[in-house]
Amino acid sequence: MKLLEKLAQEKVLRDPIHDFIHIQDQLILDLINTKEFQRLRRVQQLGVANTIFHGATHDRFGHCAGAYELARRVTDYFGQYFASKTPGDGFWNPEERMVTLAAALLHDVGHGAFSHTFEHLFHTDHEAMTQQIIMGDTEIHQVLLQEGPDFPNKVASVIAKTYPNPQVVQLISSQLDVDRMDYLLRDAYYTGASYGEFDLSRILRMLRPCQRGIAVNIGGMHAVESYLVARYQMYLQVYFHPVSRGMEILLEHLLGRVKELLSAGKEPQSLVGPLLAPVFQEDHDLTVHEYLRLDDNLFLTAINGWQDSDDTILADLSQRFLGRKPLKSIQINEQSAPHLDSLEKIVKEAGFDPRYYTARNDAYDLPYDDYKPAAKKPRTQIELVLADGSHRELSELSTLVGAIKGRASLDQRFFFPREMLDNGPDDLFTDVHADFQSLIKNDTFIPGED
Amino acid sequence: MKLLEKLAQEKVLRDPIHDFIHIQDQLILDLINTKEFQRLRRVQQLGVANTIFHGATHDRFGHCAGAYELARRVTDYFGQYFASKTPGDGFWNPEERMVTLAAALLHDVGHGAFSHTFEHLFHTDHEAMTQQIIMGDTEIHQVLLQEGPDFPNKVASVIAKTYPNPQVVQLISSQLDVDRMDYLLRDAYYTGASYGEFDLSRILRMLRPCQRGIAVNIGGMHAVESYLVARYQMYLQVYFHPVSRGMEILLEHLLGRVKELLSAGKEPQSLVGPLLAPVFQEDHDLTVHEYLRLDDNLFLTAINGWQDSDDTILADLSQRFLGRKPLKSIQINEQSAPHLDSLEKIVKEAGFDPRYYTARNDAYDLPYDDYKPAAKKPRTQIELVLADGSHRELSELSTLVGAIKGRASLDQRFFFPREMLDNGPDDLFTDVHADFQSLIKNDTFIPGED
Amino acid sequence: MKLLEKLAQEKVLRDPIHDFIHIQDQLILDLINTKEFQRLRRVQQLGVANTIFHGATHDRFGHCAGAYELARRVTDYFGQYFASKTPGDGFWNPEERMVTLAAALLHDVGHGAFSHTFEHLFHTDHEAMTQQIIMGDTEIHQVLLQEGPDFPNKVASVIAKTYPNPQVVQLISSQLDVDRMDYLLRDAYYTGASYGEFDLSRILRMLRPCQRGIAVNIGGMHAVESYLVARYQMYLQVYFHPVSRGMEILLEHLLGRVKELLSAGKEPQSLVGPLLAPVFQEDHDLTVHEYLRLDDNLFLTAINGWQDSDDTILADLSQRFLGRKPLKSIQINEQSAPHLDSLEKIVKEAGFDPRYYTARNDAYDLPYDDYKPAAKKPRTQIELVLADGSHRELSELSTLVGAIKGRASLDQRFFFPREMLDNGPDDLFTDVHADFQSLIKNDTFIPGED
Amino acid sequence: MKLLEKLAQEKVLRDPIHDFIHIQDQLILDLINTKEFQRLRRVQQLGVANTIFHGATHDRFGHCAGAYELARRVTDYFGQYFASKTPGDGFWNPEERMVTLAAALLHDVGHGAFSHTFEHLFHTDHEAMTQQIIMGDTEIHQVLLQEGPDFPNKVASVIAKTYPNPQVVQLISSQLDVDRMDYLLRDAYYTGASYGEFDLSRILRMLRPCQRGIAVNIGGMHAVESYLVARYQMYLQVYFHPVSRGMEILLEHLLGRVKELLSAGKEPQSLVGPLLAPVFQEDHDLTVHEYLRLDDNLFLTAINGWQDSDDTILADLSQRFLGRKPLKSIQINEQSAPHLDSLEKIVKEAGFDPRYYTARNDAYDLPYDDYKPAAKKPRTQIELVLADGSHRELSELSTLVGAIKGRASLDQRFFFPREMLDNGPDDLFTDVHADFQSLIKNDTFIPGED
Repeated sequence: MKLLEKLAQEKVLRDPIHDFIHIQDQLILDLINTKEFQRLRRVQQLGVANTIFHGATHDRFGHCAGAYELARRVTDYFGQYFASKTPGDGFWNPEERMVTLAAALLHDVGHGAFSHTFEHLFHTDHEAMTQQIIMGDTEIHQVLLQEGPDFPNKVASVIAKTYPNPQVVQLISSQLDVDRMDYLLRDAYYTGASYGEFDLSRILRMLRPCQRGIAVNIGGMHAVESYLVARYQMYLQVYFHPVSRGMEILLEHLLGRVKELLSAGKEPQSLVGPLLAPVFQEDHDLTVHEYLRLDDNLFLTAINGWQDSDDTILADLSQRFLGRKPLKSIQINEQSAPHLDSLEKIVKEAGFDPRYYTARNDAYDLPYDDYKPAAKKPRTQIELVLADGSHRELSELSTLVGAIKGRASLDQRFFFPREMLDNGPDDLFTDVHADFQSLIKNDTFIPGED
Repeated sequence: MKLLEKLAQEKVLRDPIHDFIHIQDQLILDLINTKEFQRLRRVQQLGVANTIFHGATHDRFGHCAGAYELARRVTDYFGQYFASKTPGDGFWNPEERMVTLAAALLHDVGHGAFSHTFEHLFHTDHEAMTQQIIMGDTEIHQVLLQEGPDFPNKVASVIAKTYPNPQVVQLISSQLDVDRMDYLLRDAYYTGASYGEFDLSRILRMLRPCQRGIAVNIGGMHAVESYLVARYQMYLQVYFHPVSRGMEILLEHLLGRVKELLSAGKEPQSLVGPLLAPVFQEDHDLTVHEYLRLDDNLFLTAINGWQDSDDTILADLSQRFLGRKPLKSIQINEQSAPHLDSLEKIVKEAGFDPRYYTARNDAYDLPYDDYKPAAKKPRTQIELVLADGSHRELSELSTLVGAIKGRASLDQRFFFPREMLDNGPDDLFTDVHADFQSLIKNDTFIPGED
Repeated sequence: MKLLEKLAQEKVLRDPIHDFIHIQDQLILDLINTKEFQRLRRVQQLGVANTIFHGATHDRFGHCAGAYELARRVTDYFGQYFASKTPGDGFWNPEERMVTLAAALLHDVGHGAFSHTFEHLFHTDHEAMTQQIIMGDTEIHQVLLQEGPDFPNKVASVIAKTYPNPQVVQLISSQLDVDRMDYLLRDAYYTGASYGEFDLSRILRMLRPCQRGIAVNIGGMHAVESYLVARYQMYLQVYFHPVSRGMEILLEHLLGRVKELLSAGKEPQSLVGPLLAPVFQEDHDLTVHEYLRLDDNLFLTAINGWQDSDDTILADLSQRFLGRKPLKSIQINEQSAPHLDSLEKIVKEAGFDPRYYTARNDAYDLPYDDYKPAAKKPRTQIELVLADGSHRELSELSTLVGAIKGRASLDQRFFFPREMLDNGPDDLFTDVHADFQSLIKNDTFIPGED
Repeated sequence: MKLLEKLAQEKVLRDPIHDFIHIQDQLILDLINTKEFQRLRRVQQLGVANTIFHGATHDRFGHCAGAYELARRVTDYFGQYFASKTPGDGFWNPEERMVTLAAALLHDVGHGAFSHTFEHLFHTDHEAMTQQIIMGDTEIHQVLLQEGPDFPNKVASVIAKTYPNPQVVQLISSQLDVDRMDYLLRDAYYTGASYGEFDLSRILRMLRPCQRGIAVNIGGMHAVESYLVARYQMYLQVYFHPVSRGMEILLEHLLGRVKELLSAGKEPQSLVGPLLAPVFQEDHDLTVHEYLRLDDNLFLTAINGWQDSDDTILADLSQRFLGRKPLKSIQINEQSAPHLDSLEKIVKEAGFDPRYYTARNDAYDLPYDDYKPAAKKPRTQIELVLADGSHRELSELSTLVGAIKGRASLDQRFFFPREMLDNGPDDLFTDVHADFQSLIKNDTFIPGED
């Protein structure tokens, strides 16, 4: 491996979360200056969530830079206090620094516009795309090659979690990684939600390299508790927010409508420009280059145009989306879910096509779990290091985490047009709306007796 | 005037700057829900400044909501402690509350994408546009009409500064207004610059209605000093930042290139879609409806497409813009400015058309001035109220403000391609670049002797 | 009741937690200006905790002012949006405002120096003392009388929880009261611990008056969760800190030593000055006036002097206390506790009198519990108000609170001189210390086999 | 010099200003654990200022630890990026690290209780005392000796500004030093004043070692401007606050009264205990040991006792001090000052001895000045380093600093009993008070015509 080329004087990016992002290596500076990394400025971190938390306008550029900065702080700290003396002693090998920093910086480079919706509708996967960008014909690949012919592959394998050193993999992706630590703090800062805060400095000081990856000194237990509670709260308060989901469903339905119109033979050029066309092309896998041209602006501009579509459903959904008229929702559960068609029927009677104006949507998260060998994707559990060097799984010592462990947060909802809650005097559908409303109590669907 | 309809329970928007935006009136809620106001979510507050301060992704929606919230706090405070007892007594008339709140909320609704550049290139004016939106065939106009047939006109006249009550006008627009107070704090928060902070709560408590408008109790003098210093610092540190300006110039030049290509007979549909077309149409004044379809996304998407243009200048400028390769710059001054053509000549020798790859750009601000009747646009000076009720102009009592008063901040720069600073071994233009570099010292243009 | 006399212009105290404490009533201003309230400036909020968190120098004056400010905000909000229309309708009666504010301000006025230690050793009770100060021959009593002859009694009954209106009582003292909300935020701010933070503004907006007291709108559930987690964390991280407790035990033992010396006939004037003498007088109940002369300074000055005592134990303990040499500690539990005398024996062998140099200390807290009618002191549970007005106990809806409910935090420790952990070469007691250390593993006492 | 002994694992103190104080050397840890350094916990940083800013309860322990932490950050940064290669090259010599850290930590160790008042009244000097503590028979001296026989002397010479390396001296004491940077931020945090904030991280990154000491990279100019403005504002808003000064004058007068009573033959034991006695002993220079027993508690406890004094002036002043009844004040100036005896005369007529109940007090600060060789104490000016390595004095480039440079802030006041402003119906001195009040306008003394 070529000797790392340090910058003569570090460069910094001002960052509202970490104060400064410190760039000390030519390689990192060059990666940031690639056009693929710069594209992240045009992809919002939280998609449509700014329609409910108007402050949350931040983009993936800032998040990736932040994840890098945390990786830099941890690897510096490990290098200073926990450097390996003999291979395999479980301490930190300073030669892993650059692959860790590059992987942290690039971990989200494959994220596209409105990823959640996009991946669902067009069957892509941002992690696979990240690896393709790292390995493909890109500026990023060229920069990585400067570090050595195998370096791009090493970085890609960290993203794929196949890199042999578990310390590196877990710093980038585990239940306590630089990705999550950055986005929780960043999302909290930008939403103003004040739930995502935790004691970052203490966690960073308490991380320890070990044989099986990364553990936490017992002195950091409460800081990790706060981090997990922050995560739990951010999911319930921000990421699951029904209004965001009502907006996402509008987006998904309107893109679905375009897909359907094109399938039905509608002229593409009347609906999509050249950059967006490949997305809707049937039986076509997006190339890396096609993918890298996509960003939030492209979709939002298309929707802006679709407001004038002669397809009334597409025009209406587009106007609702840009005018921020989300679908409304009520909670459902195991008991009430089977009765949803009664609701859909009423919505239809009120004049709305249920395929485009209703949806069932489950928001799900498992805040923390210990290692379950039998699970489909077993999680790397968080382990605490005691004074004598022995390890204990976090929930064994923390009441709070014990309470959260393995318990999923779940919010199941049925979405419908806001008109269903109207009952003004000049409303054509007053009776239908009243029927609908009679089935709701405390924001929850209570199916009537048949 | 119709009785104000208060919401039964106030609604709030979570805001990272002011914690909560409190909405207590149906009218305000309805204004926020118009599509014209929602459009502000798609217009960034600081244009391209996020290319240097990556955190600064915030939009004009948040700023307008924030300015409204400050107006709400001030008018509530005035209503509680400084309500007028007899007309003309110089105190606050609570009936002015709603026109103040509406004007604060809507004061920037006419801002378009990249306003600074846009207005310069297409000869529009966001304040005039704000008034047209308020008075035109818009949802906003319809909502305002609910308050009374003359209400839209009243709100528009506040924006135009022709409203008879100077207290209302000055709260919205003066050297110490809700607009500036919000944007300084908001821009500081999002850039992470930490220069824009001042003691907002104290200023809000120290504002006083008076015969000629708004004054400040003497107890708030130091808080106002901090506010003016914050303003001064934000201009020098953020708004004047040479990298932002290097990006703005790219934007201006590439849009100018499109304009020129169209003038020269290039087919419009190959360059601009239907929403953007009216902007470039010669001898055409944008209608309110055309204007309201414009947003950042539309421009950024067009630029994304122009990267493939067969016009190499347009393609190159577009790639530089999206790839964040700003023009570089050096300081110039009265002495050196006349010699700029020598620099332009060298740039041309190095293969760059100076019309598109160089620029002279002056950043100018006057942080504070007292009332100068002879000035073209005399400013409303900030006055302090002493214990006995007499008034003194701020700089008479404040050393700090005395130092700033009437002294403009000015940063004059010459912009050029970054390649001019290269001198690598495989560089075709090494000599030319060396000539160029020999004229620069300490980031400043030092014209050589002829 | 006399009409409340509002101040013409509110006065404010700058507060680092709540920005400003707003004083709007002459009564509140007069209460703050009494000498009994001013004494709170000389009583630290967290006693000796600043020996571990050096930032935590704050006093009870700030906390009481903060609790008042929260009460003011809640009662203002209730008065504006939830004012009672007919008696007994479960809404807020604005006439309760002043008694609530006075009780919030005065709720800790009976706290003495190092309350925890003091009450334990001298059998006083700060809540009883608060009531005596309110009802006794004090400036506070005189000020309260201005509001009406029965007003002091009403305020005292709020402290005693016998006031008929449960809304008032619960705002001052319940599992979600202005006292706890202020001290968690304040202690977090001053320690820098960053664990005690929660979304105060949201909680304040979500409190609701109801028939049985105070409930929380369902929209505030997550904010209350954060508050309870903050409380849980502050107990474990700050209030239970072993170093603080090691200092408190020193303090208790040295005061105990003085007591003993006096019992044994030592001349009082050689040990205690006139202000401290009554504290140590046998069979004497402190009068209100004697009590109000006590503050932290008096005790710290006495300890300063005791460093020169001819009683070597008192001199040594005093020097350790002022020189910050806390007793060290290890965790014990049900199994190991019965074997503590073996540890004490070793400490004695090493030359330390176990009565003064060892201690067993349990730190205990129950972060939250629901209403348990059979409990000795049943707690007022936190209830959530659903959209239809029905109530649910918090832990029924919150997984997180369900996990904490009824589960005590407990930290049992054995304290001993730090010398027991030494084993330097020139140490007389190396063998004894080694014996001691052999019984400790992972900061825990592991009794050896006999 | 002995090799520096690094701690195997750094220890940290939680600090609300700098997050963590990092302790990496045994020497620093041992210094903190001396009883002389622990005494700083009992000396408030801002003396009586907490009577106006109740949050400002912080002590000198935190400030000294903070100044140390800033010194640690700067020296680490210098060691990493600006280490000297050949002696005398103007870069940083890493061997200066420990003397810099020790001097930063100890720079205020000689501060006594209420230093300002104390030094004025008892003719001591805290800087001289700091040197005596470092060189005398103290635990601190013993710890410093471990670093080498000459080390205490080196540290003391830094305090005395006679140390040969100007970089070390200026880091500890100059117009931009770790002392001021810490106390401005710390005082702002604790007062909640929000004026003292500036961009610490940027300044720390922009400091540069140079031949003549410490300079600032041009990129830090605005950050230094903010720092100087923060300093200016803190002086005017906090340190000059008339209420603090009204309290300080009470303190000075009551201590002066004790001095006088003792001179007049009053029995010492009735007024002062053994620890305080040396302070009042005539013709006695305090020994280091006597001095180190003094702290805030001792004085406050004495004042607590003096409330019962049979000397009515001493008792009254003591009650006013502890009951927070500061002397009131009005501004005076060059014109009005000569006429103060007319005011004193009225005060005397109202029954107050002007020697104890009035005072003239000037608050003075010079926020910044450049180097003035002819000045009594020439200041080390702040210099900026340009891109080509040349230096410019700060005010040459900064408009803002140019405005402040060499202009003193001055607030001259006359203090008097608050009773002079009363004029209640049952006031014996209504006429006298009215006379007094007739000479005041806008908080300023306007001498009447004779």
